[in-house]
Amino acid sequence: MATTHLPTPPRLHHPSPSPAARLRATASLAHPLLPSRPRLAALHSHSPSPRHRRRRRAMSVRSSLIDPDGGALVELVASPDRLPALRAEADALPRVRLAPVDLQWAHVLAEGWASPLRGFMREAEYLQSLHFNCMRLPDGGLVNMSLPIVLAIGDAEKERIGDKPDVALEGPDGGVVAILRRVEIYPHNKEERIARTWGATAPGLPYVDEAIASAGNWLIGGDLEVLEPIKYNDGLDHYRLSPWQLRNEFDKRGADAVFAFQLRNPVHNGHALLMNDTRRRLLEMGYKNPILLLHPLGGFTKADDVPLPVRMEQHSKVLEDGVLDPETTIVSIFPSPMHYAGPTEVQWHAKARINAGANFYIVGRDPAGMGHPTEKRDLYNPDHGKKVLSMASGLEKLNILPFKVAAYDTVAKKMAFFDPSRSQDFLFISGTKMRTFAKNGENPPDGFMCPGGWKVLVDYYNSLQAEEVTPVPV
Amino acid sequence: MATTHLPTPPRLHHPSPSPAARLRATASLAHPLLPSRPRLAALHSHSPSPRHRRRRRAMSVRSSLIDPDGGALVELVASPDRLPALRAEADALPRVRLAPVDLQWAHVLAEGWASPLRGFMREAEYLQSLHFNCMRLPDGGLVNMSLPIVLAIGDAEKERIGDKPDVALEGPDGGVVAILRRVEIYPHNKEERIARTWGATAPGLPYVDEAIASAGNWLIGGDLEVLEPIKYNDGLDHYRLSPWQLRNEFDKRGADAVFAFQLRNPVHNGHALLMNDTRRRLLEMGYKNPILLLHPLGGFTKADDVPLPVRMEQHSKVLEDGVLDPETTIVSIFPSPMHYAGPTEVQWHAKARINAGANFYIVGRDPAGMGHPTEKRDLYNPDHGKKVLSMASGLEKLNILPFKVAAYDTVAKKMAFFDPSRSQDFLFISGTKMRTFAKNGENPPDGFMCPGGWKVLVDYYNSLQAEEVTPVPV
Repeated sequence: MATTHLPTPPRLHHPSPSPAARLRATASLAHPLLPSRPRLAALHSHSPSPRHRRRRRAMSVRSSLIDPDGGALVELVASPDRLPALRAEADALPRVRLAPVDLQWAHVLAEGWASPLRGFMREAEYLQSLHFNCMRLPDGGLVNMSLPIVLAIGDAEKERIGDKPDVALEGPDGGVVAILRRVEIYPHNKEERIARTWGATAPGLPYVDEAIASAGNWLIGGDLEVLEPIKYNDGLDHYRLSPWQLRNEFDKRGADAVFAFQLRNPVHNGHALLMNDTRRRLLEMGYKNPILLLHPLGGFTKADDVPLPVRMEQHSKVLEDGVLDPETTIVSIFPSPMHYAGPTEVQWHAKARINAGANFYIVGRDPAGMGHPTEKRDLYNPDHGKKVLSMASGLEKLNILPFKVAAYDTVAKKMAFFDPSRSQDFLFISGTKMRTFAKNGENPPDGFMCPGGWKVLVDYYNSLQAEEVTPVPV
Repeated sequence: MATTHLPTPPRLHHPSPSPAARLRATASLAHPLLPSRPRLAALHSHSPSPRHRRRRRAMSVRSSLIDPDGGALVELVASPDRLPALRAEADALPRVRLAPVDLQWAHVLAEGWASPLRGFMREAEYLQSLHFNCMRLPDGGLVNMSLPIVLAIGDAEKERIGDKPDVALEGPDGGVVAILRRVEIYPHNKEERIARTWGATAPGLPYVDEAIASAGNWLIGGDLEVLEPIKYNDGLDHYRLSPWQLRNEFDKRGADAVFAFQLRNPVHNGHALLMNDTRRRLLEMGYKNPILLLHPLGGFTKADDVPLPVRMEQHSKVLEDGVLDPETTIVSIFPSPMHYAGPTEVQWHAKARINAGANFYIVGRDPAGMGHPTEKRDLYNPDHGKKVLSMASGLEKLNILPFKVAAYDTVAKKMAFFDPSRSQDFLFISGTKMRTFAKNGENPPDGFMCPGGWKVLVDYYNSLQAEEVTPVPV
């Protein structure tokens, strides 16, 4: 039994989604499996004043949820009463413009996914992450921290900041998002960062191309204070529950075990089989109420991955079809960008879910992996992810559940756990194969994915092809 | 106060050195600062029978020396009475030929420098080393292990071994050196190993060129049993004290602190100043008898480093000139090969010295660093080595002593700690500059290095030039 601090409940904005987003999100918004707006409203019906908030911050409740890393969940969003002062302060500070991926990291930091990290890394944290995939706590203990969460700046920005202690961070649209305090600027050795994070320096690593290759030669770390909760106004913000909100929800549901499933792909019935089987196993272990956190990654992904809105629609169709139990499933978006750094990144995926209250983590073949960008092979040994996860420092308190291999059983005509004694009956349908089916308008075998979910994918690929043939005005 | 187990005293062989080695080693052999043969003979005068040995293994003595990693020093040399049986066993096993660097690692493992590691790494140890620079103990604690100590084999060898549990390792000359038991064979992903170890994959990394690039695509790990202590017969074996021998020597001298100085370069008076100043500081801290372990690296080094026999002769001249105190200094060779892996490797250098009894470790600018092989810059940030060392998991019990910068004081005409208030008086003489002086027969400023030590370097570079102009028979 651990105690969980009750941090400030973030304010929830529900701006009108764009028509396209509304279209895509309709089903999911209405679906009972998802944390619905009424449920969320109830969750935050106290609508606390800043003073109330402060009082609640000091409270703690008994909870059976796993402790966040460092003992208390970090929250870096300023209380609303500080907003005018912070805006005034920011006006006088040197500015650093955040790229879209930087903003996603600011979001991750602000909500405490990286607890106990309190901002973009200073050099001491960066070096610990790079060399040990860990950070040391003041008491000498270690927490896992496998990805460097850093902010790059160029020579001109460094010059402009000089020796000023604080800087204002502005979003991609120019508005001030946060203040970074007691900053430290240190060299951004890109080659070393890439080599130690990916175990490769080959050209074509998607995150490197997106966020490192053309980034500045300096890193700036400091303590982050975010002015307001970060929103994307894409019709999906209501899915973006913070670790605090998730913990609250798990508590409300009386969860005595939380098992997290990280994904960045459409859910097929093999995934569903695995999640349902995991629940069955947890019940057999004596847990009374295991709750599934179905937790798609919502930040940067590579160009040929299925985009987030499509995936969310697909997930909601899968849930509508009753493949997963609404009462014991929470679907939420994990706001982190994707590194595709395999065994190094899977630790981050697991660690962040500890902070959201998960004490069981499902890990499959080649987690966070991809093809080698220049050679015809997987970038990582597909077994290394689960091996590294099981030996990682700072993740000892998390129960790792290795993925059983599910494949299409051509006899039973459904997804089933692979049975090596009749291997000829099984069909492995890779992500690439699945996408090829959908692109070509072909149907996968019956029972591979629920029809509603499959249709979402087919429609998406059709829309892509339509775009390709539509003449673009020059 | 820790207890140190008394492991088997290794047998010492003193074969006649080659004439060239004898020439280079004469001064050092005779020098009182070094652990002389009589001293070593006394150390092992018990000439224990195997049965005695086993009895002594179970004994332990009170000692103020730091505990070896894992609590007990690993020793992997078989007792002599097992030799006939091991040779017979090896005759029936598949063979793996060790390259010279592999043999150096077998030596390192056999003497327990890598305690608690008991052989070439299996995959679980390899992955821990690669991702966390650590290994987990059965009790959950961590020891540092930053370099993968692995043995590569090719497809043909893998095929030959099949599923046999044990293999015989033969030295570069074909004789059986060791048996590797309960072997595990796993893929050698060279790109990932290099990237994670060096933080770079650029061509031209010396250890990669020597020992990885053309090595096999598989790694073989297992428990090592070395048949006899590994010797090189180069006239320098008497300098190669094992961790057990060093601990014994420190105990005999009544050391209450041991400070280790790793080097792979000639000792100049700046180094000496630093070592003497460290001793002074330790005395001020209240230690009564700090002993210096001057511990040149003896394994593989890059082509333009000064070769080991020349360095040993240079060190002995430096000691002869009384720059360091014979009573409180032990010179010994550290048998490890050099990786030039900067912040990753300096951890190995420090960790190995814990196993030899050192509780203080001196670290300078850019330890284990070198120039970037393809770019005009240092491969590593020169400050990262000491920073990473101070935060490394598993090295908490070691006291890190950061190097003060010494330079040539042109006013005092001697090496002195750099005084930034009169920086114009100081001359920094890099290793490259030093080598250029010696190559050109020029003298460095008075007081840079003792004349005897300097002459060794000049003679060495003269001999190189003589070789260069001597026509080589085709």
